[in-house]
Amino acid sequence: MITLHTWTTPNGRKPIILLEELGVPYEAVPVDIGNGEQFQSEFLKLSPNNKIPAIVDDEADGGPLSLFESGAILTYLADKYGKFLAPSGAARWQAMQWLHWQIGGLGPMLGQLGFFSKQDDAFALERFVTEGGRLLTVLDTQLSKSEYVAGDDYTIADIACYTWVMAASERLQEPLADALGKPNLQRWLALVGARPAVQKGMRWKPRG
Amino acid sequence: MITLHTWTTPNGRKPIILLEELGVPYEAVPVDIGNGEQFQSEFLKLSPNNKIPAIVDDEADGGPLSLFESGAILTYLADKYGKFLAPSGAARWQAMQWLHWQIGGLGPMLGQLGFFSKQDDAFALERFVTEGGRLLTVLDTQLSKSEYVAGDDYTIADIACYTWVMAASERLQEPLADALGKPNLQRWLALVGARPAVQKGMRWKPRG
Repeated sequence: MITLHTWTTPNGRKPIILLEELGVPYEAVPVDIGNGEQFQSEFLKLSPNNKIPAIVDDEADGGPLSLFESGAILTYLADKYGKFLAPSGAARWQAMQWLHWQIGGLGPMLGQLGFFSKQDDAFALERFVTEGGRLLTVLDTQLSKSEYVAGDDYTIADIACYTWVMAASERLQEPLADALGKPNLQRWLALVGARPAVQKGMRWKPRG
Repeated sequence: MITLHTWTTPNGRKPIILLEELGVPYEAVPVDIGNGEQFQSEFLKLSPNNKIPAIVDDEADGGPLSLFESGAILTYLADKYGKFLAPSGAARWQAMQWLHWQIGGLGPMLGQLGFFSKQDDAFALERFVTEGGRLLTVLDTQLSKSEYVAGDDYTIADIACYTWVMAASERLQEPLADALGKPNLQRWLALVGARPAVQKGMRWKPRG
């Protein structure tokens, strides 16, 4: 059984979507980052960087495995179950490069934009508006060439990018309107957003 | 033969180090980002996000493969040659999670700190000093538990983190002095820095 420690953020929703796509049983344990639960010692044992998501797979080859970083978790689960990431060849590396692009670029830059959009710092805000818009435009251009982010098939690169583009659509519509309105991006948002597992992951809330 | 399009930045040095470690023949093609060469159309065909590094492997399985994003490149080369990343099991995923931690956290945050250290924006500067120091402290704590970043063995996670910590040591010594001086980090910098391939990668310069 996979235990997923997560919350209702773009990175936190990624593994929920993938586990729902895979149809694998899992238990989601909420880590309320608004309440500082990511700093509790039990959680830090799993995720020493105090970030969600983290998983524990008690049926991993060679014994229980704990893993943090959403990109590593997506790759692990996709490889374990042999879905949404080709085992080798160009299709695998297309997906891996775009996954890394989201992890190292789209995510951190939209995250900083989210932060500075609530601060009084016009210089930094403009920096991240420009960079966020540039990255979304790169994604739109890529989606003008292929159905999904990494080619003809839906992969973990789509899951990784989707939760962040949706967060931008919901919370950063005004500064990013031009980029978010681009047609290939909109086509892809509708395509990915129609998947039941994606809908379930985006709706996920902690109980109680 | 592998063609590496790169420059003298932390991300640009990573694949040089790994190729030197592997002892694999390669050709390094400089992309002078100070001169805007990353925006030339030939380069954008390889790397639509206009960032170095990118590789072309004309002997990949299934035909020539072009790949961007330093983390994807490190993973591809390590898997292709079967070194510096375990093929499966806990050792593989330990390395992958710390690689992703560098790609999504340490790199972007030190990169932003480098940018704001040259601007007149005290609010943003403090944000990235705090976050950069926190991340380096997480790395120091991890290195108090194991010889290398992801355990007993030197992996691509060490290569990925090393070039960024060295860049911080050289250019951000003052704001990050406390974190950079931590003993486990210093022990590991000396250990990794003693490797001939690492020295070669850190010294690499375009000819001419």
